[in-house]
Amino acid sequence: MKKFLFLLSGILLSFGLTAQENTIKENDSIQIRKIFNTALVNGKAYNWLDHLSNAIGGRLSGSLNAQKAVEYTQSQLEELGLDKVWLQPVMVPKWTRGTREYAYIQTGPGSSTEVNIAALGGSIATPTGGLKKQVIEVQGLEELEECKGEIKDKIVFYNRPMDPTHIQTFKAYGSCVDQRYSGAEAAAKYGAAAVIVRSLSLKIDEHPHTGSMSYGNLPNSKRIPAAAISTKDADYLSGILKLKKDLEFYLKLSSENRGEVKSYNVIGEITGSEFPKEIMLVGGHLDSWDLGDGAHDDGAGVVQSMEVLRLLKEIDYKPKRTLRVVLFMNEENGLRGGKKYAEVAKINNENHIFALESDAGGFTPRGFSFEASDAQFAKIEGWKTLFKPYLIHYFEQGGSGADIGPLKNEHIVLAGLAPDSQRYFDIHHAATDTFEQINKRELELGAATMTSLIYLIDKYGL
Amino acid sequence: MKKFLFLLSGILLSFGLTAQENTIKENDSIQIRKIFNTALVNGKAYNWLDHLSNAIGGRLSGSLNAQKAVEYTQSQLEELGLDKVWLQPVMVPKWTRGTREYAYIQTGPGSSTEVNIAALGGSIATPTGGLKKQVIEVQGLEELEECKGEIKDKIVFYNRPMDPTHIQTFKAYGSCVDQRYSGAEAAAKYGAAAVIVRSLSLKIDEHPHTGSMSYGNLPNSKRIPAAAISTKDADYLSGILKLKKDLEFYLKLSSENRGEVKSYNVIGEITGSEFPKEIMLVGGHLDSWDLGDGAHDDGAGVVQSMEVLRLLKEIDYKPKRTLRVVLFMNEENGLRGGKKYAEVAKINNENHIFALESDAGGFTPRGFSFEASDAQFAKIEGWKTLFKPYLIHYFEQGGSGADIGPLKNEHIVLAGLAPDSQRYFDIHHAATDTFEQINKRELELGAATMTSLIYLIDKYGL
Repeated sequence: MKKFLFLLSGILLSFGLTAQENTIKENDSIQIRKIFNTALVNGKAYNWLDHLSNAIGGRLSGSLNAQKAVEYTQSQLEELGLDKVWLQPVMVPKWTRGTREYAYIQTGPGSSTEVNIAALGGSIATPTGGLKKQVIEVQGLEELEECKGEIKDKIVFYNRPMDPTHIQTFKAYGSCVDQRYSGAEAAAKYGAAAVIVRSLSLKIDEHPHTGSMSYGNLPNSKRIPAAAISTKDADYLSGILKLKKDLEFYLKLSSENRGEVKSYNVIGEITGSEFPKEIMLVGGHLDSWDLGDGAHDDGAGVVQSMEVLRLLKEIDYKPKRTLRVVLFMNEENGLRGGKKYAEVAKINNENHIFALESDAGGFTPRGFSFEASDAQFAKIEGWKTLFKPYLIHYFEQGGSGADIGPLKNEHIVLAGLAPDSQRYFDIHHAATDTFEQINKRELELGAATMTSLIYLIDKYGL
Repeated sequence: MKKFLFLLSGILLSFGLTAQENTIKENDSIQIRKIFNTALVNGKAYNWLDHLSNAIGGRLSGSLNAQKAVEYTQSQLEELGLDKVWLQPVMVPKWTRGTREYAYIQTGPGSSTEVNIAALGGSIATPTGGLKKQVIEVQGLEELEECKGEIKDKIVFYNRPMDPTHIQTFKAYGSCVDQRYSGAEAAAKYGAAAVIVRSLSLKIDEHPHTGSMSYGNLPNSKRIPAAAISTKDADYLSGILKLKKDLEFYLKLSSENRGEVKSYNVIGEITGSEFPKEIMLVGGHLDSWDLGDGAHDDGAGVVQSMEVLRLLKEIDYKPKRTLRVVLFMNEENGLRGGKKYAEVAKINNENHIFALESDAGGFTPRGFSFEASDAQFAKIEGWKTLFKPYLIHYFEQGGSGADIGPLKNEHIVLAGLAPDSQRYFDIHHAATDTFEQINKRELELGAATMTSLIYLIDKYGL
């Protein structure tokens, strides 16, 4: 009977809530419709991204292009007439790729095949004349341990592919990225000469996908070069290794770590009219890899975040809480911008109630992933029906975004925009991450989806 | 209190169902997982589509390529080891584009700009030397009526754009397509010399989008040429018309209607083991427009439909009901295949319980649109949670597919796969509808989603 009454009270409660919610929803759905219409008819994200991608291009931390992106986004935020726009200085690692990488497989005298590689971000160079070594293929760090006796003076070829059965491609990425990040450190311990890593892509093509790697605590003298190889060439190499185990692989990289340089997070703010000390953050990262123009990673997140503030201004909505856009520097190879922002926020005793990052590509938005308490998540989930007309359906607890991670504490809600992920790793960190791969509407829908959530959080709190 | 008890019984009932459903769901979710894994790891749809798109190409009704597509898909279905594979003859209209269309805007002596046009499917040619006339711009058929006195001997330029605020782009298409389909017929009545129609695309680019048009009951002598103009050129023309109302537009088309020729629907069947007379149909259309290779419209639907039968065979599931794949001919300009199939089904007194069409592009599947009674729809909706792991969330009552429409009666459930629609009209009926625009995983996910629904309908009936 107790259970019975409990159920009953649940019903009555939900009936009560429904009536109240209906009124709320009517006003809110009008505002959200305005947000979407403005984004789709009169959006600015696409034009901003055109400039970032085509007029500027790849924005490697510490590069001239990264500095251009700082100046451009600062000027664009200033044009929006925000309450404050400022640059937050941050020291970032400067790594350069140097002249184009070069690699080939030699199966015998006069018999060689060129393959497509790209130095991993942070990798040292090979000797000037390159290096030519035998190859040992492993399917990941665990298998490396099993054949540690055979590694010495060889090139370790990490070839575990992403698992295509994951519906969310980020899960497939997550279960392979250790090869890229820690592969060189692990192989160097057993005396490897270099590592090549299968590109983290579900598509079989000729484009190598770069990305960050770390030598951990290895002293400079122990560090070895590391490069990504295209999926097509990885399959080729794996096949030919079965026929000729003692083939040789030639690798030449000119990349170099050049210490640290000064750069900036770009920040803009609409100060809250009622609760200025409650800060809502929306952001993406300004830096990108250098092979493409970084349109999806994370030019899209940058312009969508800027668009959130612009759209609220366009529909003449004045936030009660402070809304800050933060364009983080150096997500890709150091996360210095995210760390610096959180450090300064802590020093200033700032109260961030919410942070939303867009860093999963500019594809059709499906919803959000939240790092939140059950109670906070339940509150947010109550708004889900407002998003249904826009085919936004994915509200799940999970990860959020790398740059906002350092803000984590027991009160803040962190969230990540969750776009359709099927195409993301086809182009991620590769020469194919370009503006041509952006669909204007998909980008705009993402911005409107983010703006709608910010609007609701501003209105109802967390 | 009555209401109270009613609510209570509802709770108990739903608890009861939940327990039963859990068992069902456990088995079903294993089967559906198998379907998705097989599609993603070991799918065949992408290779089939590569052949249809690249080895064959555009498949205009009545063309040699359409015949090649008939023979290729028939042979592929035969290789699957189905219980039956056959061709169903159907007469289709044969329309040819002839030599490349040509058009320019002349604003004065020696001052002209070439624009990108494509004859609409079914249009007659211009005179051999083309025609050069003044232009009158209207925003649709209604506005044509308002200026009917000014039409005579002019080219009517229909320029109502698709409304970007529709989240589902098919709605935007639906509210503009009358200009293309009936624009020539309407303008001819007022003595127009020709019509040009703004391409039905939300993207501003240089590609004209063709599509079907009809002269209704107009006698041959009254028919006028009709062409699509690219959105970019439509904007250009509209802008320049504001400056120079009496500019002239030169148009040359060589298209021709060449009567009817024999073609085929391609059909394959797995005969049901328990209820062979209950037929479930899955299909798409083999024909396409000629400007691109028809990869999305509707090569994708063709190969996904074939893949449904192959996937069930791969996971060793033997349908209780008869499962038929139908690759319809002539959806684009006549719907002859769909009509013929329904006609024969009626003559043979066949009992179709379900028909599913994929004809909205090979993009990430979001769900289905159903033409069903409320009771039937409620039953289907009960399966929705089984699709959640695959991010399939869209189950709505609405339209289904053109080819299966003629099967409609009061018992059958019709459904259409609903993929993400944001990019579809960028490439629809244009030279850009090519295999390069297909993402392998998105295509495969669509096939798996369709197969899962067919599996559930086979298992539980409707």
